[in-house]
Amino acid sequence: MDLVWICVIVGIIAAGVAAYFVRYVLRQDEGPQRIKDISAAIKEGGLTFIHREYRTLAIVIAVIAIVLALVPGLGWKMTVAFIFGAVSSMGAGYAGMNMALRSNGRTCVAAQKGLNQGLRVAFRGGAVMGLTVVSIGILGLSVLYFAWHNDPNFLITIPAYGTGASLVALFARVGGGIFTKGADAGSDLVGKVEAGIPEDDPRNAAVIADNVGDNVGDVCGMGADLLESYVETVIAAMTLTTVGAIVAPWVTTTLFPTLSADVAVQAAWWLPLLVMAGGIVASIIGCFLVRVGEKMEMSTLLGALRRGTLSATILTAVFGFLAIYFLHGNLALFWSMFAGLIAGALIGESTNYFTSYAYKPTREISEASATGAGATIIRGFAVGTMSTWPPIILIAIAIMVAHHFGSFYGVALAAVGMLSTLGVTLATDAYGPIADNAGGITTQAELPPEVRERTDALDSLGNTTAATGKGFAIGAAAMNSLGLILAFAMAVGIVTLSSTGKLTLPPELSLLSVPVIVGIILGALMPPIFCAMTMKSVGVTTSAIINEVRRQWRDIKGLMEGTARPEYGRCVDICTRTALKEMLVPSILTIIVPVLVGIILGKYALAGFLIGALATGFILAVTLNNAGGAWDNAKKWIEAGHLGGKGSDAHKAAVVGDTAGDPMKDTAGPSLNIMLKLMSVISLLLAPVLIHFAGLI
Amino acid sequence: MDLVWICVIVGIIAAGVAAYFVRYVLRQDEGPQRIKDISAAIKEGGLTFIHREYRTLAIVIAVIAIVLALVPGLGWKMTVAFIFGAVSSMGAGYAGMNMALRSNGRTCVAAQKGLNQGLRVAFRGGAVMGLTVVSIGILGLSVLYFAWHNDPNFLITIPAYGTGASLVALFARVGGGIFTKGADAGSDLVGKVEAGIPEDDPRNAAVIADNVGDNVGDVCGMGADLLESYVETVIAAMTLTTVGAIVAPWVTTTLFPTLSADVAVQAAWWLPLLVMAGGIVASIIGCFLVRVGEKMEMSTLLGALRRGTLSATILTAVFGFLAIYFLHGNLALFWSMFAGLIAGALIGESTNYFTSYAYKPTREISEASATGAGATIIRGFAVGTMSTWPPIILIAIAIMVAHHFGSFYGVALAAVGMLSTLGVTLATDAYGPIADNAGGITTQAELPPEVRERTDALDSLGNTTAATGKGFAIGAAAMNSLGLILAFAMAVGIVTLSSTGKLTLPPELSLLSVPVIVGIILGALMPPIFCAMTMKSVGVTTSAIINEVRRQWRDIKGLMEGTARPEYGRCVDICTRTALKEMLVPSILTIIVPVLVGIILGKYALAGFLIGALATGFILAVTLNNAGGAWDNAKKWIEAGHLGGKGSDAHKAAVVGDTAGDPMKDTAGPSLNIMLKLMSVISLLLAPVLIHFAGLI
Repeated sequence: MDLVWICVIVGIIAAGVAAYFVRYVLRQDEGPQRIKDISAAIKEGGLTFIHREYRTLAIVIAVIAIVLALVPGLGWKMTVAFIFGAVSSMGAGYAGMNMALRSNGRTCVAAQKGLNQGLRVAFRGGAVMGLTVVSIGILGLSVLYFAWHNDPNFLITIPAYGTGASLVALFARVGGGIFTKGADAGSDLVGKVEAGIPEDDPRNAAVIADNVGDNVGDVCGMGADLLESYVETVIAAMTLTTVGAIVAPWVTTTLFPTLSADVAVQAAWWLPLLVMAGGIVASIIGCFLVRVGEKMEMSTLLGALRRGTLSATILTAVFGFLAIYFLHGNLALFWSMFAGLIAGALIGESTNYFTSYAYKPTREISEASATGAGATIIRGFAVGTMSTWPPIILIAIAIMVAHHFGSFYGVALAAVGMLSTLGVTLATDAYGPIADNAGGITTQAELPPEVRERTDALDSLGNTTAATGKGFAIGAAAMNSLGLILAFAMAVGIVTLSSTGKLTLPPELSLLSVPVIVGIILGALMPPIFCAMTMKSVGVTTSAIINEVRRQWRDIKGLMEGTARPEYGRCVDICTRTALKEMLVPSILTIIVPVLVGIILGKYALAGFLIGALATGFILAVTLNNAGGAWDNAKKWIEAGHLGGKGSDAHKAAVVGDTAGDPMKDTAGPSLNIMLKLMSVISLLLAPVLIHFAGLI
Repeated sequence: MDLVWICVIVGIIAAGVAAYFVRYVLRQDEGPQRIKDISAAIKEGGLTFIHREYRTLAIVIAVIAIVLALVPGLGWKMTVAFIFGAVSSMGAGYAGMNMALRSNGRTCVAAQKGLNQGLRVAFRGGAVMGLTVVSIGILGLSVLYFAWHNDPNFLITIPAYGTGASLVALFARVGGGIFTKGADAGSDLVGKVEAGIPEDDPRNAAVIADNVGDNVGDVCGMGADLLESYVETVIAAMTLTTVGAIVAPWVTTTLFPTLSADVAVQAAWWLPLLVMAGGIVASIIGCFLVRVGEKMEMSTLLGALRRGTLSATILTAVFGFLAIYFLHGNLALFWSMFAGLIAGALIGESTNYFTSYAYKPTREISEASATGAGATIIRGFAVGTMSTWPPIILIAIAIMVAHHFGSFYGVALAAVGMLSTLGVTLATDAYGPIADNAGGITTQAELPPEVRERTDALDSLGNTTAATGKGFAIGAAAMNSLGLILAFAMAVGIVTLSSTGKLTLPPELSLLSVPVIVGIILGALMPPIFCAMTMKSVGVTTSAIINEVRRQWRDIKGLMEGTARPEYGRCVDICTRTALKEMLVPSILTIIVPVLVGIILGKYALAGFLIGALATGFILAVTLNNAGGAWDNAKKWIEAGHLGGKGSDAHKAAVVGDTAGDPMKDTAGPSLNIMLKLMSVISLLLAPVLIHFAGLI
């Protein structure tokens, strides 16, 4: 029997569990009309954004699909796979966000009953996203496998599926990131700072846009980002086993020594899919383990989430071992997969250490704030740059271990291991914005303060899991990019594999050949440029929002007195339009520049370019995410009553850090993930064309 | 005749001109006792720091010298060259700083007579530094050449000279950087912010330390940094012409096609030295062209400085061409040199564009400040990251052009071209801190406000030249590192040169071999870690200063009333001790980590490590320098009366940006230059040992 059927069954089970969680959430009380109204406004805004974004996307997808169909040597299947990948990602984003938009009000109502009831609703809302993503991911890959795996061009075709998902992720992450922080900063500046009214005050026309932003950035964007990583790691692992249409000899001699060549390559394709399937089952079990009794403390809540992810990790290791064993694989491959699995979990933990106020780094930022905002910025930036060491060291170790036990296939398998528990890690991540929204609704609906306290507690927990999730997403993106770069190098024929799994490398690919050096230098330039553009875009969106809210206060009579209602929709609309407009240039650069480098400077320079971008992109992304997260929590530490508490000079300084960090951690940093992956997968996709370019100059 | 005698003569002429400038400055009026006193206090502080620093250095140098003497395969000549390099750099730093310390008070007095008189004294004070550095550089290299150029191990020995200079530069840049910004921030925070007294107020015990800091960081540190780049580029160019003791065949066939092998390699060694000699003559002429008539505007002052650097650039191109022509070199080599010369000049200009308030990027930061400090930080960081593109693109083009016309020797020659005008560029750079000091003395001596206005104008001009100089220093460091990495690769035998000047590269050095990838990733980690440590050190020093000033206000009766004088020396002392202590860990890491990578992961991984560090280091250094410079000038733009001027909310926000940017642009950013160079030159130095390590794991 073709073992990929197991993946189909697991994918269907995951969809079933997601449906069960949907039913659970939808059965919860929607609460009084006031909550329903606000929730409906956020939902409307979210759907408006996603519809407009998807319309723009449809055009871009159509254009690229036509280009792909016309480029000689690529073939129609690639076009179909590309569209399929894009549609899969759009579907996953839509489903996850739709659910998040229906969970926020219900979480609010549930929190009236108690902290734990609130946690349950919010977490299950988030779990829908996690399970939908892995279900769509594994089903999509299975469909492609069944349709075309006997086609000799199978491995040239499937990267197009990843590219489709990648393109959607770009829009979701970058557009969503610009939207969410533009709305957030605009709303805060015009409301809290300028008018002196509280956060989430219903008289502020931008509050709904702010709440919408949490969903489009953190739910939809994060989901699309990780769906992409999820499918592309599997694609990279598959692609590495054959070069052109020839099975790499070491697959039969080293990886699956007891199998014949035909069966061995099948097994090498099955293994990553089966590890993912095992991870999904483990994630489902993990999701159900996130249960707490009544009357629990915050630390225990965090413990409950951790119990979910930890048990999923252990179970995945067991399932992965079984998969290797039953496929007659070299058992050493287990260590390759395990290295990635553990590295992913530890990267999450290290992110937590550097960004949670339970630990020294963030508290030092709070303390520095007592000397002023300048010190807040310096110390936060120092924390961000310092926090790069654990993920870098962990990834370096994972690569060495994985390579030692499974050569380049092992490196790809490590990436698969890292992403295998995505179902549950993404659930803990998507939970955050739901809790954040619930807090916003609580204030707008003027519910009793103890409810806001509970939703604030849920939000704090969400901040921690969000930081951990971001660290994980970057680690996954880096491993994923590396796998894709290797796959690219093989696909354009600049490296080949010997029978022992060692690479045969041409002198043109040497680190010190001029095209490679120039490629590395130019690649290193992409992340900072991209980062500068997206941060500037947030500023543009913020200004647009501020002007609109001011206009409404001026033009709508009785707004400030609370007798008239602001036009929330217009702010959502402005954010949507500005975000989509602003994301165009960075997106086009991401797609065009690698192609130009490949054509003008040649395929060797392109390999250098991708590695250069990976080096600076990873460092920058980790720095921005962790500095941003640490600034946010340093402010929360002061708000919790330390160093003078809310309103003190230290607090004012910490607010500056938080404001500066927001677009770093929620726009620029996460966008870099996509940029790295998209550039790599586009190169892989165009390998059949780029194979002809050794450099024009 | 051995043409290196020309270099000796030019070196002596440069020393003579420096002596002429010394005499010119020392003949200027020292002014009233009040100015003499303050100037004496700064001088004493500066000398205290440099003496203590040199004592610590002496120990470190002795330890490393002993290690070098004991490592088998290196030999006593290497130890001697190392000590010689260290002593040369210490001498240059001492001479330059001593002169700066004697020019500050005299500039102040001269500024009483007029703006231009002030400029003349300050510029000539700075020119002493510039000319001393190039004189010592070229004389040192000439001495080594005459002593040992017939020794077969000559090329293995001379990198030790660069390493000695590099080590001193590390102490001067990192220690000086921590000192200067710790004192600056401490003085500002405790004085301006906490006590509400003006900048440079004599009641503040930290003001002298602040003034001392300008000298130890910007004069002594910058000089040592660039002396190192200066000698190392020549060393890299020489080293690239032979592999082991064998002349690279392409030197005779391609570079000097009409010469015999013996003569050709001599010519290849002479050429970089002669280009430097030409640059020195051009720089001297340039220095004398910095003359202005009376009653001139600021823009014309900047024009005067530019006339000096521009004419030096043109003259150097002419001299360089003549050198190639008379050495019977391939005339195509001119383009290699020219590419570097032009790239260096344009990098300076681009830095000016991104950091001067005459242009859009900095003004946008000022405008963003109107929305608050968070926006200041975001916009400044966006400007910093965006500003990476011109230097990166320029360096990429320079490398490609230089390589096209002169293979790898051409790349090294481009670096030589870039640094050849150092005499005059360093003069414009060292002028800045003298003007800054003069401003401080003016306030402390309570001179009439129009004098402070003039010294402020000189200071503003100095800020622009300082930013340009920093851009130039980073570009030079990057080109220099690259040359050293190539030299390292040849010295450890991982690349060899074919007769056509093409590299023969082993598969182990492929971009995609695992040790190289792991090396790149680990190398990429060094700059952010180094950056985090130095920025944190500034914070530690700042706190120490604040506590000391507070203590003095508490303990010394009558201090605030102006009837007692503070103990300035104690603040200098605290800064010195803290800076020297804080720089230890990052310095040791810089020296140890590349050695460990080379031994544990092997020479291939070490090559990747150096390239990875170069990629992120260059990006980070440019970002930090330019963001810092732009924040500084954005504040100055507001202080010039725009957006509400001094005291407005926009100004307060801009001050936050300036405070945060200071340690970035004056400590972390410039320190990265040294880190990149030191790691590369240490690898080159240890090549005879590392040649045996292909990786333990």
